Amino acid sequence: MAILVVGSVAFDAVETPSGRRDRCVGGAATYFALAASYFTPVRVIGVVGEDFGPAEEAILTRRSVDTRGIEHVPGKSFFWSGSYMKNLNEAQTLSTELNVFQSFSPKIPAEYEDSEYLFLANIDPVLQADVRRKMPKVKMVCGDTMNYWIKDHAENLARVLRNLDALLINDGEVKMLAKENNLVVAARKVLAMGPKSLVVKHGEYGATAFFSDESFGGTVVSTPFRAPALPLAEVVDPTGAGDSFAGGFFGYIASQPTFTPSVFRRAMFYGGVMGSFAVERFGTERLQQLDTSEIEERFALFRQLSHLE
Amino acid sequence: MAILVVGSVAFDAVETPSGRRDRCVGGAATYFALAASYFTPVRVIGVVGEDFGPAEEAILTRRSVDTRGIEHVPGKSFFWSGSYMKNLNEAQTLSTELNVFQSFSPKIPAEYEDSEYLFLANIDPVLQADVRRKMPKVKMVCGDTMNYWIKDHAENLARVLRNLDALLINDGEVKMLAKENNLVVAARKVLAMGPKSLVVKHGEYGATAFFSDESFGGTVVSTPFRAPALPLAEVVDPTGAGDSFAGGFFGYIASQPTFTPSVFRRAMFYGGVMGSFAVERFGTERLQQLDTSEIEERFALFRQLSHLE
Repeated sequence: MAILVVGSVAFDAVETPSGRRDRCVGGAATYFALAASYFTPVRVIGVVGEDFGPAEEAILTRRSVDTRGIEHVPGKSFFWSGSYMKNLNEAQTLSTELNVFQSFSPKIPAEYEDSEYLFLANIDPVLQADVRRKMPKVKMVCGDTMNYWIKDHAENLARVLRNLDALLINDGEVKMLAKENNLVVAARKVLAMGPKSLVVKHGEYGATAFFSDESFGGTVVSTPFRAPALPLAEVVDPTGAGDSFAGGFFGYIASQPTFTPSVFRRAMFYGGVMGSFAVERFGTERLQQLDTSEIEERFALFRQLSHLE
Repeated sequence: MAILVVGSVAFDAVETPSGRRDRCVGGAATYFALAASYFTPVRVIGVVGEDFGPAEEAILTRRSVDTRGIEHVPGKSFFWSGSYMKNLNEAQTLSTELNVFQSFSPKIPAEYEDSEYLFLANIDPVLQADVRRKMPKVKMVCGDTMNYWIKDHAENLARVLRNLDALLINDGEVKMLAKENNLVVAARKVLAMGPKSLVVKHGEYGATAFFSDESFGGTVVSTPFRAPALPLAEVVDPTGAGDSFAGGFFGYIASQPTFTPSVFRRAMFYGGVMGSFAVERFGTERLQQLDTSEIEERFALFRQLSHLE
């Protein structure tokens, strides 16, 4: 079933030990949409400027992503530039130019209203809440956020968290949100804020999911679940790894007829798979040209990675 | 079959957010021996001073650890004190008093000569090589080391690495040893130094094993293996977690009739299990009083943690 994603569609400039790109299409919604597109139909809501033309849009439409919700307005697209020269695990932001994103007010095309799955990528929680409210019939909502919103927009963020089926954030963000250093205790505190499940991304160490009693309706799962990440000999560009994880995770869930603990676990593995592809090339290069057999092959590798007979 | 471990037997003073202990029996060989004792007979070679009396030795002998190789000499035992107040993941050493350990010259009792498994805990690589040389008939040798030996005793360490079946160290140590920041590339470089297998410990994120073509005789395993760690709501005292991991890992291997990839993988899980018990109480308190059913129960939990149907 179709996933609707709202988030940034942007241009990125990155430098990493493997090289540099001065301008590639990026943004959380782009990475998410491409990764999810291998599993299920995807629809995007975002805003771009005049610099985002048919060639850029084709990156999404070639993967059959529905871009009718990408609004084109006068001005320049969101631009981010970052460096991984000092630390491949954490981007050093060199500049952020919000441009047309500054006055982004998400509009939902009529054709998107029957979307059953909604992903609120990392944007202002006021906008996240707004989109959530405009999609009352949605079946499942997942979301992301970041340190900036956690620190300075806590109340707005709290309203979003209350209505999430799953929150996907990284270790540092969980601990900051819970004001607690132990991951398990922090996870419990975050679950108490509302999300039914919490997926904590550990970068090269994989991801851990924590469940509340409401995660799966009647079925209570008390053990966390940990999915591995593939040890990679070369990480070309870490940008978008987390969004690609989210796309693989939620895309797989949306592709399944029922939502069960077993589907959730497999979704965690598919998240890792899509994240591992994303970082193998610059920008979205690798995510544009996968085929299903590569994805299934890597899924099998992930499975083998931690599998006991 | 019996494992012989050579390493420190010591007194520790630790402070952690959960409290403090001014004097508890510690040392790498102690943690290793206790953890391994649940799987196989263990023999210890070490040195202690007059402050290490029958009550301290009983901690090992109650677990049927053979302590005939612990030499008692005049003076005080090795003493270490550390704090985890700032960072639970890394001890801040407050003081190290080598005492009787300074002139330690390992002697192997005749009764130990038929040991088939040898663990070289983190001590001067000259001593590690010496013990290795005195045990020519041993079937399998694993070892540990630390940044101090990697930085300032590289040549001596290189001689030890050449003859190891498995080296067990943490992320930082692998990268320092290989002078390389990417874990996969660093692991390949370390394997090229001699150890047939490499187990990289990631603390709360588990451990990853990398294999050379020689890891399992004729059977070549090209995929790394990642074992999870159990997310714990309270880490009382992280001291000895790595040594307990090594004890569970090697103890399980020594208990099995054959050495196969499948045994190696299960051993990685048992390593995580014993490490997770170690940190639940101060010092070796928890490792002194386990029973097999608790270990098997936790093994099942570890398995569930990353298991896909």
